[in-house]
Amino acid sequence: MSSARRAVYRHADLARLFDPRSVAIIGASPRPGSFGERTLKALAHYDGRIHLVNGRYAEIEGRPCHPSVAALPEVPDCAVIVAAREAVEPIVEECIAAGVGGVMIYASGYGETGRPERVAQQRRLSELARRSGMPIVGPNCIGMLNFRSRAGVTFMQIPQLPEPRPHAVGLISQSGALGFSLAQAHERGASFSHLLTTGNSCDVDAADCIAYLAEDPGCAAIACVFEGLPDPARLLEAAEIAEAHDKPIVLYKLGTGEEGAAAALSHTGSLAGSMAAWRAAFERAGAILVEDFEALVESAAFFAKMPRRPAARGAAVVAVSGGSAIMAADRAEVHGVPLPQPKPEVRAVLEARIPEFGSPRNPCDVTAQVANDPDSLTACAEALLGDDAYGVLIYPQIYATELTGQRVAMLSDLARRMEKPVCIVWTTEWLEGPGARAAEEDPRVALFRSTDRCFAALAAWHARAARRAAGPRRWTRRAAPEAAAEAAALLDAAAPGATLTEREAKRVLAAYGVPVVPERLARSVEEAVAAAAALGYPVAVKVESPDLPHKTEAGVIRLGLKDEGELRAAYAAVMANAGRVAPPPRINGVLVQPMARPGVEVMVGGRMDPQFGPLVLVGLGGVLVELMRDSATALAPVTAEEARAMLRRLKGFRALQGFRGAPPADLDRLADIVCRLSELLADQRGRIAELDVNPIICAGAEAVAVDALIVRGGGG
Amino acid sequence: MSSARRAVYRHADLARLFDPRSVAIIGASPRPGSFGERTLKALAHYDGRIHLVNGRYAEIEGRPCHPSVAALPEVPDCAVIVAAREAVEPIVEECIAAGVGGVMIYASGYGETGRPERVAQQRRLSELARRSGMPIVGPNCIGMLNFRSRAGVTFMQIPQLPEPRPHAVGLISQSGALGFSLAQAHERGASFSHLLTTGNSCDVDAADCIAYLAEDPGCAAIACVFEGLPDPARLLEAAEIAEAHDKPIVLYKLGTGEEGAAAALSHTGSLAGSMAAWRAAFERAGAILVEDFEALVESAAFFAKMPRRPAARGAAVVAVSGGSAIMAADRAEVHGVPLPQPKPEVRAVLEARIPEFGSPRNPCDVTAQVANDPDSLTACAEALLGDDAYGVLIYPQIYATELTGQRVAMLSDLARRMEKPVCIVWTTEWLEGPGARAAEEDPRVALFRSTDRCFAALAAWHARAARRAAGPRRWTRRAAPEAAAEAAALLDAAAPGATLTEREAKRVLAAYGVPVVPERLARSVEEAVAAAAALGYPVAVKVESPDLPHKTEAGVIRLGLKDEGELRAAYAAVMANAGRVAPPPRINGVLVQPMARPGVEVMVGGRMDPQFGPLVLVGLGGVLVELMRDSATALAPVTAEEARAMLRRLKGFRALQGFRGAPPADLDRLADIVCRLSELLADQRGRIAELDVNPIICAGAEAVAVDALIVRGGGG
Repeated sequence: MSSARRAVYRHADLARLFDPRSVAIIGASPRPGSFGERTLKALAHYDGRIHLVNGRYAEIEGRPCHPSVAALPEVPDCAVIVAAREAVEPIVEECIAAGVGGVMIYASGYGETGRPERVAQQRRLSELARRSGMPIVGPNCIGMLNFRSRAGVTFMQIPQLPEPRPHAVGLISQSGALGFSLAQAHERGASFSHLLTTGNSCDVDAADCIAYLAEDPGCAAIACVFEGLPDPARLLEAAEIAEAHDKPIVLYKLGTGEEGAAAALSHTGSLAGSMAAWRAAFERAGAILVEDFEALVESAAFFAKMPRRPAARGAAVVAVSGGSAIMAADRAEVHGVPLPQPKPEVRAVLEARIPEFGSPRNPCDVTAQVANDPDSLTACAEALLGDDAYGVLIYPQIYATELTGQRVAMLSDLARRMEKPVCIVWTTEWLEGPGARAAEEDPRVALFRSTDRCFAALAAWHARAARRAAGPRRWTRRAAPEAAAEAAALLDAAAPGATLTEREAKRVLAAYGVPVVPERLARSVEEAVAAAAALGYPVAVKVESPDLPHKTEAGVIRLGLKDEGELRAAYAAVMANAGRVAPPPRINGVLVQPMARPGVEVMVGGRMDPQFGPLVLVGLGGVLVELMRDSATALAPVTAEEARAMLRRLKGFRALQGFRGAPPADLDRLADIVCRLSELLADQRGRIAELDVNPIICAGAEAVAVDALIVRGGGG
Repeated sequence: MSSARRAVYRHADLARLFDPRSVAIIGASPRPGSFGERTLKALAHYDGRIHLVNGRYAEIEGRPCHPSVAALPEVPDCAVIVAAREAVEPIVEECIAAGVGGVMIYASGYGETGRPERVAQQRRLSELARRSGMPIVGPNCIGMLNFRSRAGVTFMQIPQLPEPRPHAVGLISQSGALGFSLAQAHERGASFSHLLTTGNSCDVDAADCIAYLAEDPGCAAIACVFEGLPDPARLLEAAEIAEAHDKPIVLYKLGTGEEGAAAALSHTGSLAGSMAAWRAAFERAGAILVEDFEALVESAAFFAKMPRRPAARGAAVVAVSGGSAIMAADRAEVHGVPLPQPKPEVRAVLEARIPEFGSPRNPCDVTAQVANDPDSLTACAEALLGDDAYGVLIYPQIYATELTGQRVAMLSDLARRMEKPVCIVWTTEWLEGPGARAAEEDPRVALFRSTDRCFAALAAWHARAARRAAGPRRWTRRAAPEAAAEAAALLDAAAPGATLTEREAKRVLAAYGVPVVPERLARSVEEAVAAAAALGYPVAVKVESPDLPHKTEAGVIRLGLKDEGELRAAYAAVMANAGRVAPPPRINGVLVQPMARPGVEVMVGGRMDPQFGPLVLVGLGGVLVELMRDSATALAPVTAEEARAMLRRLKGFRALQGFRGAPPADLDRLADIVCRLSELLADQRGRIAELDVNPIICAGAEAVAVDALIVRGGGG
């Protein structure tokens, strides 16, 4: 939708708009239920100056109403246009002329209708923003909440917004309504700095909002309801800013499936893209993806409260019920959060304090006797947090009473003294029962209403800290400097859209230093026999033709030929089969290859995505990728560490670790191949539409590409 | 822990205990914080008669206190023993003598300590119950809540319990604390009939509680926190009673992993068993397993409110925001809930009512304009529910205001008029915001605080209705009547613990009518050549020895031999390899088999589980089962429909449907084999410890077992 790419807005670009000292309502109205009247109501507790613009009124609700933006007593920081679509464009021009800090547009009926004239209308707004430098939010947006100044620039009905705490979360939502859904968590004690909604994103988009909050000192972590962006690179740009400020980004993705994506397309017109590609982008961005909407605010609040680095990877669980201890152990196992056993001194404290029907282990069950002896809980929790093995304490709150607030205070005090955070798993189904608000409001205690989500967040916390501890991403090229030109020449020999022959494709691979099986092209059976003798039996033969990309299906491939007799027979058979294909294929000859020694089969593929650019994909060979959809995708090019992480992410990763007595694959060797192929995809993004190297056979330290397919892209 | 098996208690057996007209506190005390004092407090609003027993007091809190059970003015229905462990046994005997309806025991320190003398102490309680017929709950239990009579027989601090509604859920928890966690949902409007906790289950166990609630007219659905039972068959027995009363059972399983199971073992001493086996038992029981604790009450409340049969499988989604519509579509796709498009007349209503920037489809987005035109939402929702394609309406409540209660009332009225239920997805993070309680309390509106959990429950609702529509489980034997005796004779020829040779194992299979690859045993190379000539090339040869169960690893198998030359070479090679094994294996000869024609490889296995009895397992052959852990387990024997369902449950099921151009496998043929093998496992439960038929090669209508391994059990 945009023409030339704009860099993401920085904090200073959007500060007047998102943290305004003055707000103008343009199209203000006293009519109950109108956008204007509702917006004025939403500003009831705003600590800045409010200006009204509408030529039809002299005053509204006792406030002066001005005929134009130019007539206002000051240039407003934020102007919200509540007028109907037809009137919007001239108002935007008026705001630009007046030097307004930025505008928000509620009106709907633009790009989301899909009608060409409406898309054009939205594009004109984009161009106005681009030309003037004045940021525009919307159209088709619900506005925003700034909790610090209590600026509710929205037509939603809102109460007085609570002051943000130091652990306030900044909310962003491409779906305005879902953003307001999440922001209502403040009613139960969650703390927010902003809610920014983007609507159709004619100018300001989710990436800009992320960049803004990344640099905003009032926001401790970012939570984002994300649909998509036409240009995913903007997300990475914003994420880099967040990374520089060590600010966690937690995302929930809308439109994860085919149906959902279809709905997304008809909604705000943003390209949803495939979920695998978005996962790859989130991974690269260092963003934390939550699988459930209800995990978003909770997990962001957790990150807002946690120290950026855990003191240790181990988690200690202290429960007052065996059942909740088991539940914690179950979920720690699912998410790979270690629950190490306490050291002997700590164990001794637990044993002294816990009755015989409890459990002085980790998870620790101090039993319901704490009702009569609350100090025993404190003593056990303190002993555990004092153990170097633990970076966090998990406490399941199983029952809420008027005393629960005291328990939260005890845990908070403990966290302060021990300088380690505490997570409370609010197990009771009295969701907002006594004590819950105290925990939400506490800076050192994170609250989860799900054991599973608690351990998922802990795992994400550990992973994020490990990633940052490893230092910034450092990509270094592995392929030879001349590889790109050499491969380009080979690719340019093929017509756009054509499929390269296996031999041609493997030459491209070889240029990038990817080990390929040796081979000879034979133009007669005698040449084939000579080639086999030179290469050594057993061999494979494959008809080499640009017109036969699917060799197995065409019957033009024979494997495991043990001697000359078999070779001759196979040669005759594959040539006969090739001869039966209509229209007659062009035949370059027959490739003769030595059989690779048996090993684990891996496939590496890739494609040029119109939205994401070059993507590289790794899976296990054979039917596994297709049948089990067991693959990992990343934005190309990847670093060696990223390539290894892709391999580890495979559900069938164990196959590479020496499965069923086979020697383990050399993961570094394999990662090197993935890196080189990702460089090929990135370098040749115009020239390669699709790449499929399948199989790569890994036998111990060896790894060799046995077959490859390249579909030529349209560029060069 | 139990000796001879007791049938599950029926409603009449437990009615005095669980729905008492009088409760006696034995060991009553005025001491603040004591079990006795706390239990008396918990009975504050009880509508029955309360009796106190303790020789040390004449009265407590103005109530007379009696020296013994015998001295009470009436025989109590329910006696709760709040005394310490040492005093419990004589009190139980006193209760038996007096004819008490049943007792509950709080005291801890029995079987859960693992100490032999304490295990014995618990066993004596079991024996007292068994001999007398007086049911005992506990020890190590927290008691129970009866919402109808407001009998809080517990030491937990409880408020006045709300009257159960017709859609009240009956709660059962093996973990008492987690049961009380769940029951606190009544504070936000959820309705319950009972909370029953079982503690160490010396007598009354979770199965008894399920059977009780199944027959209780005040309970509309059962929710159970389940750890395990030493005898899983009791769960099936209780589930049959629930099935007869068409009462849904929703379960959450504690101890799903190895760590969790370990914690479970140290907790209440119940055997957790493997999760796969428990899944098989829940499946057979027709129980609905939820994956998250927070889904348990919510899903049970849904089942309590839903009609038992949906009017149609389709669900209609009406949203006031595009984002929530997408979220619904995403999760409908994940859980396979169809969202069909409305018929033209309905579509016309939607188009007339929905603005151009909304979506007149399913999911339907009526947009935020409903704030100004609430009737449009009603009209669209009514039109959708009037469409035969839909059995339920889903409405995401994205924002809570003081008007939300009216929206709930509108939806409830609609559900009443259209005679179809409504599910509200409470998307707002104001968890107990205005309107939520009204929805919880409404008999026709189910409330979910998660889109994902809503669609998971809808899928379970459809599946349960489909299962019941198919009629009661009807298992008919497929194997020949003489199969059992024939196989027993073959198995008895092997020593307990021995591994049968492939040939012997396949004979056992053949007795059950399982097609096995033809074969001949050759005692010399000349016999092998003759056998191959008779069977037809290509053939396989395998050394037949009771001492070489892992033939591939020992190098005593050669496949795909195309002619006599290859056969002779292979014969020599396998015999040479066998000769190298130390100690020298007993060799019966060499099996010659024709190669099966290529097809999809399936494995069927099974084992005799000490807890669950015979289990049958299905997976895809090759490395898939082991590498991807892609298998389905069921209690043996299975019906053909169950066998087909096992195959459909495989993640790689598509491999059987004609994957990559291969012909589809004959699922009925394959299901027949699974049935027969499950009969073998069930018939020979003492004789077979382990069975592994791998692979069964399926090529179109053919399916043949190519290899098989049987480990002889210790019985006969």
